[in-house]
Amino acid sequence: MKRMKVKNELARQIMGEILGTFVLLLFGCAAAAQVKTSRETKGQFLSGNIAFSVGVMSAMYLCRAVSGAHLNPAVSLSFCVLGDLAWIKLLPYSLAQILGAYLASGLVYLIYHDAIMEFSGGVLTVFGPNETASIFATYPTDVVSVQTNFLDQVVGTAMLMLCILPLNDKRNAPAPEALLPPIVATVVLGISISMSANCGAAINPARDLGPRLFTFTAGWGTEVFTCYDYFFWIPLVAPMVGGVLGSIIYLVFIQWHLPELEDESESGEMNDQTKVMEHNNKKDEIYLKMSSI
Amino acid sequence: MKRMKVKNELARQIMGEILGTFVLLLFGCAAAAQVKTSRETKGQFLSGNIAFSVGVMSAMYLCRAVSGAHLNPAVSLSFCVLGDLAWIKLLPYSLAQILGAYLASGLVYLIYHDAIMEFSGGVLTVFGPNETASIFATYPTDVVSVQTNFLDQVVGTAMLMLCILPLNDKRNAPAPEALLPPIVATVVLGISISMSANCGAAINPARDLGPRLFTFTAGWGTEVFTCYDYFFWIPLVAPMVGGVLGSIIYLVFIQWHLPELEDESESGEMNDQTKVMEHNNKKDEIYLKMSSI
Amino acid sequence: MKRMKVKNELARQIMGEILGTFVLLLFGCAAAAQVKTSRETKGQFLSGNIAFSVGVMSAMYLCRAVSGAHLNPAVSLSFCVLGDLAWIKLLPYSLAQILGAYLASGLVYLIYHDAIMEFSGGVLTVFGPNETASIFATYPTDVVSVQTNFLDQVVGTAMLMLCILPLNDKRNAPAPEALLPPIVATVVLGISISMSANCGAAINPARDLGPRLFTFTAGWGTEVFTCYDYFFWIPLVAPMVGGVLGSIIYLVFIQWHLPELEDESESGEMNDQTKVMEHNNKKDEIYLKMSSI
Amino acid sequence: MKRMKVKNELARQIMGEILGTFVLLLFGCAAAAQVKTSRETKGQFLSGNIAFSVGVMSAMYLCRAVSGAHLNPAVSLSFCVLGDLAWIKLLPYSLAQILGAYLASGLVYLIYHDAIMEFSGGVLTVFGPNETASIFATYPTDVVSVQTNFLDQVVGTAMLMLCILPLNDKRNAPAPEALLPPIVATVVLGISISMSANCGAAINPARDLGPRLFTFTAGWGTEVFTCYDYFFWIPLVAPMVGGVLGSIIYLVFIQWHLPELEDESESGEMNDQTKVMEHNNKKDEIYLKMSSI
Repeated sequence: MKRMKVKNELARQIMGEILGTFVLLLFGCAAAAQVKTSRETKGQFLSGNIAFSVGVMSAMYLCRAVSGAHLNPAVSLSFCVLGDLAWIKLLPYSLAQILGAYLASGLVYLIYHDAIMEFSGGVLTVFGPNETASIFATYPTDVVSVQTNFLDQVVGTAMLMLCILPLNDKRNAPAPEALLPPIVATVVLGISISMSANCGAAINPARDLGPRLFTFTAGWGTEVFTCYDYFFWIPLVAPMVGGVLGSIIYLVFIQWHLPELEDESESGEMNDQTKVMEHNNKKDEIYLKMSSI
Repeated sequence: MKRMKVKNELARQIMGEILGTFVLLLFGCAAAAQVKTSRETKGQFLSGNIAFSVGVMSAMYLCRAVSGAHLNPAVSLSFCVLGDLAWIKLLPYSLAQILGAYLASGLVYLIYHDAIMEFSGGVLTVFGPNETASIFATYPTDVVSVQTNFLDQVVGTAMLMLCILPLNDKRNAPAPEALLPPIVATVVLGISISMSANCGAAINPARDLGPRLFTFTAGWGTEVFTCYDYFFWIPLVAPMVGGVLGSIIYLVFIQWHLPELEDESESGEMNDQTKVMEHNNKKDEIYLKMSSI
Repeated sequence: MKRMKVKNELARQIMGEILGTFVLLLFGCAAAAQVKTSRETKGQFLSGNIAFSVGVMSAMYLCRAVSGAHLNPAVSLSFCVLGDLAWIKLLPYSLAQILGAYLASGLVYLIYHDAIMEFSGGVLTVFGPNETASIFATYPTDVVSVQTNFLDQVVGTAMLMLCILPLNDKRNAPAPEALLPPIVATVVLGISISMSANCGAAINPARDLGPRLFTFTAGWGTEVFTCYDYFFWIPLVAPMVGGVLGSIIYLVFIQWHLPELEDESESGEMNDQTKVMEHNNKKDEIYLKMSSI
Repeated sequence: MKRMKVKNELARQIMGEILGTFVLLLFGCAAAAQVKTSRETKGQFLSGNIAFSVGVMSAMYLCRAVSGAHLNPAVSLSFCVLGDLAWIKLLPYSLAQILGAYLASGLVYLIYHDAIMEFSGGVLTVFGPNETASIFATYPTDVVSVQTNFLDQVVGTAMLMLCILPLNDKRNAPAPEALLPPIVATVVLGISISMSANCGAAINPARDLGPRLFTFTAGWGTEVFTCYDYFFWIPLVAPMVGGVLGSIIYLVFIQWHLPELEDESESGEMNDQTKVMEHNNKKDEIYLKMSSI
């Protein structure tokens, strides 16, 4: 099979991001379709939150060794700002993520086509009790102003970056590398049960634009873009701002002040805090060794 | 007790699969019975999803050292295709799984016999508000076409294989071996809350056929097979297609392009310490690559 | 503080079991009181299930280094049968567990005294829409026969032992030692969402008798014992039978056929299966080492 | 960036506690706002419990390497009593936690401003069906006496300390260091689903006073302090009592009787390899002791 191996690293990464975002959205939008079309008899609001969370976990295990499993242009941009992703890769990553989300939306539509037709009476709309557009993209509630929705998406995405950056920071007290996916997934669950009332907690331009483009091409019409006073730009722009903001908050308030790693400082001295943590880590290691004997 | 040890490996594996699938279905069908017969006062739709998930976890810890804990003919078939299970074992594994599911259904019927009689008025039927067949096997909703149900089961099982194969792939960034059961269980939870609205997310021929055979023999009659235009063949055939399809997608889009493990490409002998050091080096590489997560 | 150390091992173990079972029941019965007295506005049926599960986890971390964290006479009896607990300790362990459960019930009554009085109109009863006895002990539903309830408790407790014995069996593929508490807790959650419709999933004589004795002494009267045709003996006797039965099933169908551990067999030869698992374990260890650096 | 590093350890710790408590309350209060203002259509009571739990996990990963992630004056006081925090730091820690909670409440108010205005009809009140004060601080139910509420908060916080102290006690059977945050979060979930019916399970003076001060300054008026007969002092004082009480119970009933760690009782020097071996031996002992779990 070695002949089939894709030699170009960026091409592999793009494949990884397409497939990863595809898995994320397939879980998430399928659950939204199940809850909506079953009129909450086969799941409730929480189901959709859990499904996006499981989607994050599954997508991360699937593609993080290949592409880093960003699954989100706001995450990719943040990593560009942090110096962990080449700027040249930001656009390809983002397009790959949007494509993966678009394809997943299409498949969800195929699977739930009959149920959506039954639920909507065959009329694909954005408004009213039989609307089905919200299965795919996010839409705001009526009472919320554009400024509030923008702030909501900035804060939600800032929380995402603020909470996941320490998980993998070796100078902090990180989570086990092999268990990052379920822990990141839990953070996403927390955001979606606490910050989705205003406008659906997209916190991810690809998660929103991909499905919106799909509904645009599949019969929901231009209203998916024009509705709610052209709301669609908010989940595109605000998460980019929020992701960078959250990353900066992490750097300024936490990361800059953490002790240097030994092999970075190259001097043999450690303060007590570091010693204690290293001691604890060694203990952990021994425990886990024990447990797998 | 050594005299009692079953010498034949296949016999041990069959025992493992029977008992594992028995545990899976006992949790799952008992929860379905609890929710149904209590008219959702002692649990809701989500309870059944969680119970199947806990069942997967428990069954995997129980028998994965013995038989690999496939618990599902679609998984066994996929491992045959992947070269991880001898083709000669596919039929025995599948029959063992169906038998375990049948036995679990029988025990659930015994435990919930009184409640089922009370709920159904003593008439065991497949249709109507007092139907109880859906406690055991899966049935579609009225509005969904046969093609959609087939696609639904293909996609659900493909997602299962696509999401669990990376978890144990040493060339990818796998989950901790000792924690595979709860993580696989979480994937199954995700599938059952997002893809069960159409026809119940069997994604497992044994999980469906075993209980259906039980209801056939226990008084629900031939209708369990004939209803919904002979729907029963879909959860038998579609998961087999989907499992293989998902496995192939994983291979083609991810696995072929992952870096080779050193000890696969080299045949020289190393002592353990050297191996550990080399592994650490490799992990460092992967770590650096993944530092963009 | 060394002067205060309790020298007698059994005395320490009894203290551990009292406190552990106290924690388990405090979580569980307090959640039941919260759901019941708030008339399901502050939690639902699932809340009680989750609370017992968290109680198991917390109690195990608290006292497993001291007493093994049995928390359940059926578990203690099973370990006696398996040779892991001296028979002479069975009665002290069981009495300690009942005492811990009794004390926790008393504290729950104190905390929720006002709410229980408001809910019940001041009349502490076992029957009717304002009954509050089921906050503490378990009671069956009307339609279920004594045989079915007995079977229900046998099966539930058998599932408990069958599912937790492999978790710590070094010859099987066990869970990480340091994560046994949340995984055992998940098994208990599974049992309580799938096998509690008939008679409340006590699966633990101490969990049932301790609270029942408390309600007897606190004003609910003799009816807590006489109701439902002296139902109270079922959660006392059936779990003892079920625990031993589940343990035997694990031994006969799984444990006897697992490969010997190297240092038990003392011969240098391993079959392939064992080798692969050792390899996997070493990998795991390296991963977890990496993650905590 | 080294020039930016805050040299003063206490200043860094205060920054950590502010940010950590900010994250905790942002998740928790935002979820409460979502459930309340959506009239339970976008989440239920359980959502708020889960959100506080995810907040604990996220905040702990964020700041535990910096400040220990107390996030709660009752926890800080307990650690002072246990000798793990200098008494001089108790007040700065507590003020930092209150400030973080205050700031998070302000941001939640900004995000949910429109929804709160819609829900409340523009009148910010503590009482009635359109009250919104309970989004932020905790309030009791009508029927519960002051003594019961005090006891409730003492017990809840005692359970918190009793259940989290063993998780990190090397002489006990602790959880993996790198997984403490999700496990502590699970304990908090357990407390909030079982002991929040009386007065909201603050179990944390900062979690309650910060938001209460915010509502006082943001337009809810003095009633937030005077209502329910000056209830506000209970979640300030009772958790301090409860935290210390729970810690003492852990010491007296469990910790004093655990075996000494070797490297505490010995002062000789060992190389690392020897230490690891000794630890393994000790773990083996513990393993054997725990083999009865």
